[in-house]
Amino acid sequence: MSDDDATGGEPKAPIDFYFDFSSPYGYLAAQKIGEMAQLYEREVDWKPILLGVIFKTTGAQPLLDIPIKGAYARRDMERMARMMGVAITMPEVMPFPSIPAARAVYWAKDTHPGQAVTLAKALYDEAFGTGGDIRDADAVIRIAGEVGIDGAALSAALGDAAVKERLKTEIEAAMQVGVCGSPFFIVDGEPFWGVDRLDHLERWLATGGW
Amino acid sequence: MSDDDATGGEPKAPIDFYFDFSSPYGYLAAQKIGEMAQLYEREVDWKPILLGVIFKTTGAQPLLDIPIKGAYARRDMERMARMMGVAITMPEVMPFPSIPAARAVYWAKDTHPGQAVTLAKALYDEAFGTGGDIRDADAVIRIAGEVGIDGAALSAALGDAAVKERLKTEIEAAMQVGVCGSPFFIVDGEPFWGVDRLDHLERWLATGGW
Repeated sequence: MSDDDATGGEPKAPIDFYFDFSSPYGYLAAQKIGEMAQLYEREVDWKPILLGVIFKTTGAQPLLDIPIKGAYARRDMERMARMMGVAITMPEVMPFPSIPAARAVYWAKDTHPGQAVTLAKALYDEAFGTGGDIRDADAVIRIAGEVGIDGAALSAALGDAAVKERLKTEIEAAMQVGVCGSPFFIVDGEPFWGVDRLDHLERWLATGGW
Repeated sequence: MSDDDATGGEPKAPIDFYFDFSSPYGYLAAQKIGEMAQLYEREVDWKPILLGVIFKTTGAQPLLDIPIKGAYARRDMERMARMMGVAITMPEVMPFPSIPAARAVYWAKDTHPGQAVTLAKALYDEAFGTGGDIRDADAVIRIAGEVGIDGAALSAALGDAAVKERLKTEIEAAMQVGVCGSPFFIVDGEPFWGVDRLDHLERWLATGGW
């Protein structure tokens, strides 16, 4: 930084926000991360992932299917949502395949950068705000249309090899930097896993670490 | 309650505190639960468990051994310890077998009720306060002696079939009420898993739920 830098120095790095559209805890985090980032003058880079791919490496199972733990998790999610003041409605099928939703967001980041986050929020709202079904490309295209994204272009993109490859590459890169669940945040190289680490993340943003 | 009940009503139920002596997050929770319980006029019932037994049902693996997740967890534990203001030193072998320690605590609850919690804290302190080794019966007996428990009696107890059976029964009962990890708390039937749920537990104690 120099004194004649009227902007007040280099912009801070964004918060990388990794999430699976099928993750209820990811949905809860998505309701809070934007406001928190703004408070600390950060952007948020929304990065959909597929837990199913990551679980092949970590050996994890879908949380809600696990004996004993699944029942606890469902109760914990709903209790945490109430504590956060967020309405949540579980979709009928859990977890659900979120490939079209994830591909659509990466494609939108490149082609409709001003609407990509709006699309991600709308997809999450459909799944967990109303308990809707976003598994199929048709649902994703419809929701994209509602936020002003050209449905025909998205429809073509979802079948495109480059768009498919992009999601694979992003998930591989996420694993390389240590992403093991959803939600997962990285800020200035520091990783935070879980909606229950939002308080740690906020303190990190405020203090620069401890 | 009646007006002539001079004690102010029935005592509140204790907080059931389930933990594995090999669990770093359990150690962190153990540093805080007593003070929190006291604040809300609760006792704490310290209940050692063996995650290895529970993981046979939930299919979980020891956290620190899991690809990607293990590296994150080690970082998270140390960061959380610093945030909580708790010194933590990892034992060389992680996770370690904690059977003698767990058996000793249940035996002490029956035979030395005034010293059982002191013993549990001393065992945790040895393991994670100083990074010591509490795997063997000899170590457990030595630490018990330091808190005023008769070593010869404990030594005999650790080989006793009834003491072995007691731990099995306690773990089975824990799973029956939904215990799937360490630390795990149950208060008035409400379950809380993880040191990162201490804030939820405290709010529950303060408000009676939400």
